[in-house]
Amino acid sequence: MKKPLILVTNDDGITAKGIKSLVEAVQEFGDVVVVAPDSPQSGMGHAITVNQPLRLTASTIFEGIEAYTCTGTPVDCVKLAIYEIFKRKPDILVSGINHGDNSSSNVLYSGTMSAAVEGAMEAIPSVGFSLLDHGSDADFTTSKHVVKKVMQQLLTQKFPLGTCLNVNIPNCAVEDLKGIKICRQGKAHWEDRFDKRLDQFGKPYYWLTGEFKRVDKGSEADTLALDQNWASVVPIQYDMTAHHLIPELTEWDL
Amino acid sequence: MKKPLILVTNDDGITAKGIKSLVEAVQEFGDVVVVAPDSPQSGMGHAITVNQPLRLTASTIFEGIEAYTCTGTPVDCVKLAIYEIFKRKPDILVSGINHGDNSSSNVLYSGTMSAAVEGAMEAIPSVGFSLLDHGSDADFTTSKHVVKKVMQQLLTQKFPLGTCLNVNIPNCAVEDLKGIKICRQGKAHWEDRFDKRLDQFGKPYYWLTGEFKRVDKGSEADTLALDQNWASVVPIQYDMTAHHLIPELTEWDL
Repeated sequence: MKKPLILVTNDDGITAKGIKSLVEAVQEFGDVVVVAPDSPQSGMGHAITVNQPLRLTASTIFEGIEAYTCTGTPVDCVKLAIYEIFKRKPDILVSGINHGDNSSSNVLYSGTMSAAVEGAMEAIPSVGFSLLDHGSDADFTTSKHVVKKVMQQLLTQKFPLGTCLNVNIPNCAVEDLKGIKICRQGKAHWEDRFDKRLDQFGKPYYWLTGEFKRVDKGSEADTLALDQNWASVVPIQYDMTAHHLIPELTEWDL
Repeated sequence: MKKPLILVTNDDGITAKGIKSLVEAVQEFGDVVVVAPDSPQSGMGHAITVNQPLRLTASTIFEGIEAYTCTGTPVDCVKLAIYEIFKRKPDILVSGINHGDNSSSNVLYSGTMSAAVEGAMEAIPSVGFSLLDHGSDADFTTSKHVVKKVMQQLLTQKFPLGTCLNVNIPNCAVEDLKGIKICRQGKAHWEDRFDKRLDQFGKPYYWLTGEFKRVDKGSEADTLALDQNWASVVPIQYDMTAHHLIPELTEWDL
């Protein structure tokens, strides 16, 4: 049987420890190719590069694995891989492992998850993986364990096309992991704050900062599952219609 | 009665004709303030700026209206407006008028719509407006007519918090507009292509291009309504969970 073509991307850039860990975890399952940003693209959401051209460079960073870097966003990487490099769709797309939490509404800001959503839009079975540790030297042992469990299912189960999976992994040892749980996107929000500083000319500049508030106490929320040391799996769709509101809005006098 | 505070933003940048048209259309409804990108931010999706600081500059571009430009994305503009400039939430957020179609799955790529989604996440009644004409000198007469109709309803109806509206306007005269229709996000996709060129050193670079394929023939699809000269209104939520797939995924051996 022909090995599946597995496209690996991320948003932390090709040199991140997370993508190296993801390549190591998935390479037993198929032919791995990497197309990843050449620089950190965290928080890029579903951005695409339309106002400037993209550059694509072959990379030898992963021994024995075909790899490319691109100057654009994670979604650009997916589009370049499909339409320029391979001229075909990969059988599986995996993104990450992100250095940091992409649970709850973070899915909207996350470049890692947007690459997976782009895969879903292309009808490719796609999964984004994220570890709840921002550290550049984070320990991905538990994450790799979870990646392999999910990959085994991806290759044996019927994948619901047009969707992707948002997998988050708690920052704990494998033996402390309760398991892997199917969840919904938990309700949480950022309480933003800007750190205002003055540059060398006395002119202000701002750093976005803030606190992530996990308000959802529902047992099916990914945020709560993660708090209890479960890895969370949320199926994500790109139909953003609030269907339940259509009858109410139809009453408006437009 | 106190006038509502109306925050105006966009993704084409503060000098675009679209945002000027939006300011003109909404100023009769409240106190208008503008916080918009200082350069085009099309296709930025829900990107936020986390790896570099932001700059904020007061602008006198709109006579008699408080306005600021920011070096970041549309979502950055919303966050700066709420957490740094006003230290409070506006009563209404409007974004656009975008130069170009944001119907269907374009909602994911659109900076204009992501600003509105960010407003929804902040529980602000938020609407993104887009005209199906990319031209920098597009005619926004019909769009302004639609903006006013929607604003009248926003101020008299109970707005479903946690959602925003994606309003697209066909490129036709007011007398040819069939009306304003509540829709769902139509099924459509981009058939991408990269235009490969060589620079002055003979090295390749790529421009993202492609064709938008409106495949949905359902009468409730925004894409079809627009084809028939209706302005489309789609309620958008930021819970991206594919709830219907949770039972199926729970059967996986994870």
